[in-house]
Amino acid sequence: MENWLDQIAWTAEGLVPVIAQDASSGKVLMFAWMNREALRLTRETGKAVYWSRSRKKLWRKGQESGHVQKVKEIRLDCDKDVLLLSVEQQHGIACHTGRHSCFFHRLVDDNWQVVEPVLKEPGQIYQP
Amino acid sequence: MENWLDQIAWTAEGLVPVIAQDASSGKVLMFAWMNREALRLTRETGKAVYWSRSRKKLWRKGQESGHVQKVKEIRLDCDKDVLLLSVEQQHGIACHTGRHSCFFHRLVDDNWQVVEPVLKEPGQIYQP
Repeated sequence: MENWLDQIAWTAEGLVPVIAQDASSGKVLMFAWMNREALRLTRETGKAVYWSRSRKKLWRKGQESGHVQKVKEIRLDCDKDVLLLSVEQQHGIACHTGRHSCFFHRLVDDNWQVVEPVLKEPGQIYQP
Repeated sequence: MENWLDQIAWTAEGLVPVIAQDASSGKVLMFAWMNREALRLTRETGKAVYWSRSRKKLWRKGQESGHVQKVKEIRLDCDKDVLLLSVEQQHGIACHTGRHSCFFHRLVDDNWQVVEPVLKEPGQIYQP
């Protein structure tokens, strides 16, 4: 029975947009996409698995970086076409730039200012 | 000078996904889209204006319902293709169902359970 998966209003490409929010800080960490398999795996493993639209493959968040997202809760919106995950972000770093959140540019006057610190240098995250 | 608008990685359709988060409760309220004009108007008026993909027109949030979103902060993510708004949600209701947040279905076992109360009946929000 995967009725809960059928109830989602997938896009024509079979995807659904996903917002990940940190369960502790309350910060919105990132935005990504899932297909049906990614969501099933996320549910099964308790760890966020996304669909990379650029690489056209499953993206097990944290597989390379160790920045795994433990999923505490999965929510669906009123139109059943957007997901919201509440996650425990391992090491507190969601962004590939080494920041807590991907939303680190803030519009100040007419400029996108970087307002969040790098917690770990990308060179230290992604070892060759 | 609208360089800040040019720096956004708009989709092929000229849109950008937008997450609205309540500045007080920290809750993720809704997910929608903006085009360039919607974002410019949001900035100018200090109130969220979205692009309705279904109705193919600007959607001044709260124009009918009164549930205006006063924008406190606009953020952009690492890839510059997703926006995050921090908003003051007037009347505390973002959802057309009369709930605080649109993300009111929670996955419990294999069911999407409604876990947020209706604060105002839609019939009371949208007067004929």
